Amino acid sequence: MELLKKRIQKDGIVKEGDILKVDSFLNHQIDVELMDAMADEYIKRFDTSKITKVLTIETSGIAVAYSVARKLKVPFVFAKKTESVNLEGDVYSTKVVSYTHFREYDVIVSRKFLDSKDHVLVIDDFLANGCALRGLLSICMQAGASVEGIGVTIEKTFQRGGDDVREAGYHLESLAKIKSIDSKSNKIVFDN
Amino acid sequence: MELLKKRIQKDGIVKEGDILKVDSFLNHQIDVELMDAMADEYIKRFDTSKITKVLTIETSGIAVAYSVARKLKVPFVFAKKTESVNLEGDVYSTKVVSYTHFREYDVIVSRKFLDSKDHVLVIDDFLANGCALRGLLSICMQAGASVEGIGVTIEKTFQRGGDDVREAGYHLESLAKIKSIDSKSNKIVFDN
Repeated sequence: MELLKKRIQKDGIVKEGDILKVDSFLNHQIDVELMDAMADEYIKRFDTSKITKVLTIETSGIAVAYSVARKLKVPFVFAKKTESVNLEGDVYSTKVVSYTHFREYDVIVSRKFLDSKDHVLVIDDFLANGCALRGLLSICMQAGASVEGIGVTIEKTFQRGGDDVREAGYHLESLAKIKSIDSKSNKIVFDN
Repeated sequence: MELLKKRIQKDGIVKEGDILKVDSFLNHQIDVELMDAMADEYIKRFDTSKITKVLTIETSGIAVAYSVARKLKVPFVFAKKTESVNLEGDVYSTKVVSYTHFREYDVIVSRKFLDSKDHVLVIDDFLANGCALRGLLSICMQAGASVEGIGVTIEKTFQRGGDDVREAGYHLESLAKIKSIDSKSNKIVFDN
């Protein structure tokens, strides 16, 4: 998606350790018009006719999920990250390792909000090694929900997450695929 | 706001310790149509002509802030909660005590996204003792930004937060004011 790639090129900041910061429009300050344009793009790329629910994970997925759910006129659910082992109530849960924060946490979704009748569009902001995404897919599996598609804003194709998910047979669409980033020159090279 | 109050009455669950759970439409699963209607209501209640930015705090404020920012055609910023004392980069920061989670955390906003030229509408989902809100107001003060108004989804008027903020001279609008809740009978009594 050209608009997004231009924005990443203009405002993205590369940090050591292959970190790409897009705080000015996606992860801290949110450009709502861009989110709306991204939602239109997802809707073009997926068959959305059966979708009953959009699923994302807090925090940075929420804005994108909102814009997509709004256009599809369905609710969205954000999975919650929790470090407590005492999971409250009746939830689907899975363990996720955060690459950025070097820690493990539980991801939970209440059973009330996802079940086997749901057709889900999974939305997340970043896909690198795919840990968070696999967590969301595990939750859909536990619920018996059908995953109709996975929409990611930025995929780092130099990490394995995206390929793994495609090989597992999912329809994954990434709006910007990044082949390489370099913190010294702040150079960002796209793959698509 | 009648639509919201009806929804709280229908789907709100009261837990011991004056906790009101509205997970089915505001805090875990999000009813996007309701968020849009809430945004319209805020826009009616405030003079939004000068607003340059909507400010909220992760996680549950994000959906409401999105809907308001979208209608005002301005960006929104969500303040980040962090437990790390090593604050990264150039940020405004303040300490907030969480009543629900019994812990203290730092709340930060990057200096890049808020300054003295900004006219801010502060948005949050809940107002009880007002700790999180005072944190957001402190950040606006540090930035020298003007707070044009504060929009809260649910105010518990049996706690001090709202009165304190009104007495300090802010224009605070709460879409549903709750006078009392009772976990044994699941009874919710509104104030407005």
